[in-house]
Amino acid sequence: MHIREFQKMMHDIYFHRDSKRGIEGTYKWLVDEVKELGEALRNGDRQDISEEFADVIAWLASLANVVEVELEKAALLKYSGKCPKCSKARCECTF
Amino acid sequence: MHIREFQKMMHDIYFHRDSKRGIEGTYKWLVDEVKELGEALRNGDRQDISEEFADVIAWLASLANVVEVELEKAALLKYSGKCPKCSKARCECTF
Repeated sequence: MHIREFQKMMHDIYFHRDSKRGIEGTYKWLVDEVKELGEALRNGDRQDISEEFADVIAWLASLANVVEVELEKAALLKYSGKCPKCSKARCECTF
Repeated sequence: MHIREFQKMMHDIYFHRDSKRGIEGTYKWLVDEVKELGEALRNGDRQDISEEFADVIAWLASLANVVEVELEKAALLKYSGKCPKCSKARCECTF
C-alpha cells in the first residue's frame, strides 16, 4: 500500500476524531505510542512489537492529517534514493 | 510509493549504519526526531514541519529494518480499513 493510501485510510477511519482532538492532543498520542513501541522492544514478543510499529505509523498518519501534511510527499521530498546530508545512495556521513 | 518500498530505500541508504547502531540507539534517534517534530509543530514553518514528518517516518523505517519488522505488513495487519477496536470503517469507539 502506498504511504498516501495508508494516510487516506487513517483519514477515513479517524479524521472525525483526530480533527476534534487537534494537533497538540494528537501529537501527545503519537509520543505515547512511541513510548509503547520502546517498551515492546524491551519486553514484548514479536506480535507486540509488530502492533506497536503499526500504531506509530497510524498515529503519525493521523497527525499528518490534522496538520494537513502529505506524508508520502514529505518523505520523498527529503529522501529520494540518497542521503539528504551526504547525497550518497549509501550514506557516507562521518558523524 | 509503497510503505515497503520506502522501508527498502531506507535499508539501501542506511542499513550499514543502522545495524551497527542497533535497536536501542536507533530507537533513541526516533524519539529525538519525534521531539523535533513537536518543536516544528509549535515553532516551525511549513517546510520545517514537512521535513520533520519525513525524518520521523524515515527513522521508523530504519528502526523496523534493524528489528526486522515489515512496516507495511505490520500496519495492514492491524489497520485494514476499519478501527481494530470497534471494527467500524468510521471509528465509533467511546473512549
